Amino acid sequence: MNFRLLLKLLGILSLLFGFFMLLSLAWANPNYGFHTDTRIASRQFEWGGFEALAISALVCWAFGGLLLFLGRRAEHKLYRKEAMAVVGLSWILATVLGSLPYMLSGTCRGPSVRVFSDRTVMVSVSPFQFWESWERVEGISRDDFKVLKAVVNTSARGLTDSQLVNESGDIDAVAVFDRLSKIPQLSKWLVFPGEELNAAADRSSHFRLRWVPMGFVDSMFEAQSGFSTTGATVLCDLEDPQLVPRCILFWRASTHFLGGLGIIVLFVVLLGQGSAGKALMRTEMPGPTQETAWSKMQHTAWLFAAIYVVLNLILTIIFKMLGMSMFDSICHAFATMATGGFSTYNASLGHFARNLPEVSGQAIEYVVILFMILAGTNFTLLFLVCSGQPRKLFADSEWKTYIGIMVVVSVTIVGFGYLSQDTDFETGERALRRGVFQVVSVMTTTGFGTSDFDSWNQFSRCLFLCLMFIGGCSGSTGGGMKVIRHLLFVKILGLEIEKSFRPKVVGILRLGGKPVEEPTLRHSILVYFCLIGILFVSSLLFVVMTEPDATWGIDNTNKLLDSSSAVASTLNNIGPGLGIVGATQNYADFSALNKSVFIFLMMLGRLEIFPVLVLFAPGFWRDH
Amino acid sequence: MNFRLLLKLLGILSLLFGFFMLLSLAWANPNYGFHTDTRIASRQFEWGGFEALAISALVCWAFGGLLLFLGRRAEHKLYRKEAMAVVGLSWILATVLGSLPYMLSGTCRGPSVRVFSDRTVMVSVSPFQFWESWERVEGISRDDFKVLKAVVNTSARGLTDSQLVNESGDIDAVAVFDRLSKIPQLSKWLVFPGEELNAAADRSSHFRLRWVPMGFVDSMFEAQSGFSTTGATVLCDLEDPQLVPRCILFWRASTHFLGGLGIIVLFVVLLGQGSAGKALMRTEMPGPTQETAWSKMQHTAWLFAAIYVVLNLILTIIFKMLGMSMFDSICHAFATMATGGFSTYNASLGHFARNLPEVSGQAIEYVVILFMILAGTNFTLLFLVCSGQPRKLFADSEWKTYIGIMVVVSVTIVGFGYLSQDTDFETGERALRRGVFQVVSVMTTTGFGTSDFDSWNQFSRCLFLCLMFIGGCSGSTGGGMKVIRHLLFVKILGLEIEKSFRPKVVGILRLGGKPVEEPTLRHSILVYFCLIGILFVSSLLFVVMTEPDATWGIDNTNKLLDSSSAVASTLNNIGPGLGIVGATQNYADFSALNKSVFIFLMMLGRLEIFPVLVLFAPGFWRDH
Repeated sequence: MNFRLLLKLLGILSLLFGFFMLLSLAWANPNYGFHTDTRIASRQFEWGGFEALAISALVCWAFGGLLLFLGRRAEHKLYRKEAMAVVGLSWILATVLGSLPYMLSGTCRGPSVRVFSDRTVMVSVSPFQFWESWERVEGISRDDFKVLKAVVNTSARGLTDSQLVNESGDIDAVAVFDRLSKIPQLSKWLVFPGEELNAAADRSSHFRLRWVPMGFVDSMFEAQSGFSTTGATVLCDLEDPQLVPRCILFWRASTHFLGGLGIIVLFVVLLGQGSAGKALMRTEMPGPTQETAWSKMQHTAWLFAAIYVVLNLILTIIFKMLGMSMFDSICHAFATMATGGFSTYNASLGHFARNLPEVSGQAIEYVVILFMILAGTNFTLLFLVCSGQPRKLFADSEWKTYIGIMVVVSVTIVGFGYLSQDTDFETGERALRRGVFQVVSVMTTTGFGTSDFDSWNQFSRCLFLCLMFIGGCSGSTGGGMKVIRHLLFVKILGLEIEKSFRPKVVGILRLGGKPVEEPTLRHSILVYFCLIGILFVSSLLFVVMTEPDATWGIDNTNKLLDSSSAVASTLNNIGPGLGIVGATQNYADFSALNKSVFIFLMMLGRLEIFPVLVLFAPGFWRDH
Repeated sequence: MNFRLLLKLLGILSLLFGFFMLLSLAWANPNYGFHTDTRIASRQFEWGGFEALAISALVCWAFGGLLLFLGRRAEHKLYRKEAMAVVGLSWILATVLGSLPYMLSGTCRGPSVRVFSDRTVMVSVSPFQFWESWERVEGISRDDFKVLKAVVNTSARGLTDSQLVNESGDIDAVAVFDRLSKIPQLSKWLVFPGEELNAAADRSSHFRLRWVPMGFVDSMFEAQSGFSTTGATVLCDLEDPQLVPRCILFWRASTHFLGGLGIIVLFVVLLGQGSAGKALMRTEMPGPTQETAWSKMQHTAWLFAAIYVVLNLILTIIFKMLGMSMFDSICHAFATMATGGFSTYNASLGHFARNLPEVSGQAIEYVVILFMILAGTNFTLLFLVCSGQPRKLFADSEWKTYIGIMVVVSVTIVGFGYLSQDTDFETGERALRRGVFQVVSVMTTTGFGTSDFDSWNQFSRCLFLCLMFIGGCSGSTGGGMKVIRHLLFVKILGLEIEKSFRPKVVGILRLGGKPVEEPTLRHSILVYFCLIGILFVSSLLFVVMTEPDATWGIDNTNKLLDSSSAVASTLNNIGPGLGIVGATQNYADFSALNKSVFIFLMMLGRLEIFPVLVLFAPGFWRDH
């Protein structure tokens, strides 16, 4: 193992992170950090976010410098083992460094009291961060409920004296609030005006719920979700600048950009070189053919990075032209091209359809559909198209299957939505757009939402759950298991059935007419499916075992399904799932222990399992 | 393909079925067909059942004779291809012939109106058998509800004039019944006294729900469930002799016996001979070593059949001694040793705990636990134990794992049940007995119930769902994927992870210290897991797509989970699942289309996929 080279590469990465954190700094200035929706513009310079980003950048540089110093005399020989180690370790490094800004800025994931029925209130109980759970408060009267509901409804914003009385009707709301705040479980969560003076000035005079700052696990979750281009979040309210500073939101979007870049450069180029890898990626890597392997690799890396950056740039410009602010344009371009899915609005991409002129809103959705499809396409194919060979796209079996699946599933979803009379499926154009958008969003593992697919019919929900496992094309920024694996998988099983009654005939595995028989390919495809299966089942069992029923509140019958969707969604880097992690919900309510599980799953899924697992194998680190 | 031999073997099988149908005939006489619970004894000779069985037996013989005639000059050469064909075809033949008694006897699967809340009634709507669905009846008043509930509660039994008035309180129940029976959807289902004169005499004077005779699909389902030793049923009320004659119940139990015998003789002996098969079964087949392959095969078949029959006999005697009637003893012995799970009571095996002296009831449960474990053990090992080598049992890796999984899961289930304060887990001995019983029942794929595990905590439900996929040992009557496959699967994946970072080291697959490297073993294990996965997912999608939401009544949120449990349960030959197919429910409410899917899944699971799939491959039937 060439440790010096590892250190050197990780050092370079740290410096890069520090640089990107600086880019986010600018958005702390309210003159830059404006939303498309002007109602939620930040009014003051975000010192908290600024400091956090600056300190994080300094930490990155200091750490990066140290690593570079330790690895200063590295030999430039990168074998498969080193490549795997770099990929795995750089992801861990990214997660840790990337979580710093969230933690240091005091970004809040949201207030944490939940009100279910008019008799039941749930509060978060956390003796210590890792075993957080929920506790039920009984014996709430109808008046109590009114006041509590009013406060919970305004969430982070809170209510002034007069607003509280207005919202609660004819009762002495302040006295009720006073009484409620003496109930032990609630006392930690209800904040009197002036009680919390270090909170942002214009909220200190409000009755509100206490904000929950992101802890270590929350921050790691958000960072991993960004770098792995998952887009799952623990932030309950993205639109309140006092909970989440603009500059931190920008850093959040940047992690998508970096994650996508990392996948394209590190993963595709470094790991796509093995025998099975080559067959999977189908990269006869573009570039002059006479070069050595190493310089050819570098050449391809630069080429792919350039395509990625240019596509981000084009999409940003289109967004800007369609009426989005510069801030939103960049953030959503990052989230689209990385197939991430972090938005800057609570309603995800659906926000624009409601707040921009109708034509702009629709145009944005169509543009995003197109760019999600591009982001899920093999970058080698994109390169070929750019270099004037668009026919190669339509000659590629994987890409044809990828498009084919999206078409078939879209038609099915729209058809069933119409037959089941789901909302979103009333008018033709709107039904088609919403259906196609959601299918492309889940299939490419982006996870943007324009409507709440969790409220659609049961068959559609089931289909989305299955679709999560398919993913984008190999060699793209899309996550999941990749279309090529499914394509080969089906062919391999077909050959196996044939073999069971014709044991002497050797079936040949073909792709687009050409045989793709690498010696270990068949085996490695099957192993991959089995590993995903084992990971899915064992994680599901663990989550269902350790997650308290109270996370589901008064009705826990959906625990199994919701948990399985959460596991599927993080393992395949989608983002939203079903039920409590559905399109309108988020991962905030899960216990810190299971958030850690999801962090691990996101990394495993993104790096296609092996580069993560081998890090834990002692034999991996020994020389032979 | 040696077609003549196929015909001859299938002919012999048909004759055998005819013979077994005759054995059931005796129980049509009420003097034999008595239950342990004397309240539900049949009072008259069951002419309907008797005729149906007699005619079915004649059909079997006629058909068998024809097949034997056609195959009279067969050569006795049985190759792998013929063996596969015999196994697959004999199962289809068994299902068709075995369904005759149900259909011809007019056995009823039960009445079919469901009452949910005091405003909602669901009735079965079946324009034709294949697209059955449910329709909601609105606008039922509170009085209507009372009367309807009274009638539905008595299910098949119905109420006399005075009973109806008694049960319904102060209202004019007969007038209400009259009005209800004029509502179009209900008119088909509510039966006035005397309206249906050909129904059993002592029910013709009752207000009741119309009985639904088993159709073609229902009968096939019940027959397949019996032969595949699944134990899933569409019969809603087993205890009413007018719905289900005793002799038909005995035929139902006989199908388990035959199915178990078939697996042991046909499957283990015929198919356990391939290279991967031998490694899986680990049968150095018992018997003198100098014989030829064919006579050795016959020897083993007889030996295993003898062990199976003797175990059935011993268990019957034990049951009889513990206070069960002869009828119940035989039926439950058949269901236990075949790991089937058909009971003769609605409460399954839990009936005895409630209706026999406490000690007997408990003893029965412990005895069944023991015999379920035996039935799930490799018959080669049972033979070795019988021939005085009990140590071989404890030296066998698969058996140790099998017992180990049951111990670990039992402890977990009991522990979680206790922590979650589920019912059934109050007292120590009872908690342990119920927990262990249910774990052994699901793991061995028997599916007996002594308590409603579906009402336990969510983690236990999830664990049971996973446990369904494990199954018994290879070479036993237990279904599922078999412990040995899971054992090898885990080892193979371990070796694969090692290989990913040490590509040049060849890991050796070991079982109990000895290498078990057959050339195709690794590959075939992975293929099997993948096939089960594909079957599970595609069947689930199909069921969720085609099954109307109304099957779940007013709340369809459990559709995905319930359907997945139904698919898992039939594919692995368990019987009960979760939710609407839970321990206290059955498969009657599913549409006929999806019952057909389950029939297919039961056969696929039982025959380990390939012998069924190849029947549909045209190339299989061609000679080479």
